[in-house]
Amino acid sequence: DLAERCAGLFNSRLLDGVHLTITAGPTREAIDPVRYISNHSSGKMGYALASAAADAGARVSLISGPTNLPCPDRVQRIDVVSATDMHNAALAVMGQCQVFIACAAVADYRPVNCADQKIKKDNESMRIDLVRNPDIVAAVANHAQRPFTVGFAAETQDLLHYARDKLQRKNLDMIVANDVANTSIGFNANDNAVTVVTPGGEQSIAQMGKNQLAVQLIALIAQEFHCSQS
Amino acid sequence: DLAERCAGLFNSRLLDGVHLTITAGPTREAIDPVRYISNHSSGKMGYALASAAADAGARVSLISGPTNLPCPDRVQRIDVVSATDMHNAALAVMGQCQVFIACAAVADYRPVNCADQKIKKDNESMRIDLVRNPDIVAAVANHAQRPFTVGFAAETQDLLHYARDKLQRKNLDMIVANDVANTSIGFNANDNAVTVVTPGGEQSIAQMGKNQLAVQLIALIAQEFHCSQS
Repeated sequence: DLAERCAGLFNSRLLDGVHLTITAGPTREAIDPVRYISNHSSGKMGYALASAAADAGARVSLISGPTNLPCPDRVQRIDVVSATDMHNAALAVMGQCQVFIACAAVADYRPVNCADQKIKKDNESMRIDLVRNPDIVAAVANHAQRPFTVGFAAETQDLLHYARDKLQRKNLDMIVANDVANTSIGFNANDNAVTVVTPGGEQSIAQMGKNQLAVQLIALIAQEFHCSQS
Repeated sequence: DLAERCAGLFNSRLLDGVHLTITAGPTREAIDPVRYISNHSSGKMGYALASAAADAGARVSLISGPTNLPCPDRVQRIDVVSATDMHNAALAVMGQCQVFIACAAVADYRPVNCADQKIKKDNESMRIDLVRNPDIVAAVANHAQRPFTVGFAAETQDLLHYARDKLQRKNLDMIVANDVANTSIGFNANDNAVTVVTPGGEQSIAQMGKNQLAVQLIALIAQEFHCSQS
């Protein structure tokens, strides 16, 4: 619509010459050759951010878990499946990118062992032992060649409390917090409403389409990024 | 293509007046509001069977887990998420349908408890305790108003051994066995190759497109179903 196109014009060239990396979508953690653990992330928000960043002049790498979305124009997509794959792909761009946006819904845990063969259902009960996955956004934010690092916090309760804590604990420059308990926004929805938290304060953005929100977020990220460079 | 259309003509009216129910796709078993356990089933085979059965004149109910496929023409789709949902939907059509094809890749286990809130990742390790899901195809095949019941066996090893055992143990009329370790067939692939096992013997169908294979399978199922009625 018109507002989106105006915002697009306003954004253009805000990220000229900047290499920006975005992670998007869910990850899948294999239990065996057929079963996995995943989550309800559709990838829409990350893909919208990648598209808006490209519109703003950035060179965009999109590290994407499994989604059904087409790759946006002028975006280089790197396909991954597991959190470990995504971690490796993220570290591979360190030193080359100036802004990193961790929008993927990365699985926090993975099965300790992935069975070689499909597990037979011989028992009435079963258990899956899980181990923590690498913390991708923290690894990026604490890297020697640290980019301007933006995280996301998707929570079902105490959203701002977790977001502020995560910002500090992971050494991030910005957190975009959204409440996934509200089904009209977040995960599979087309709309989103967020609160952006920086060390200096916070700012709410009312509910709107994910594409339009992405344009606003990229403008905010560009502004904070340029401030951090000066 | 031509072969498919010819097979379609040959099949037409084979299932006139028959109500056929097919389950398709994966199921998702919630761990918490954002995480779930699922599998790599795309639903393509079940949707192709639903379409071929409608072409053969059947009234088709398609009980489908989450997929990205459009509902075939002249097919009534019933959307479900978990194995428990699918079990309930299948039992709800008992007494109304004469043929039941269990093509879905139903999760064998579900988490004992689905957490109300997103689980926090406070620990280095975690475990998920699982309990067996209801066995949908066995419940159907052992129902008082039992339809002609066809199961699928997707295995990564000892395929025919498991298929023959499953046929007998679950009281099925037919099993369609396919080897999901071969990535050129099964799960996300467009092709499939199967062995059809009945109490009377077995028959292999060479690798071909899932739509074409579906037409052949529906012809076989119709033939066996009509034999069982006479």
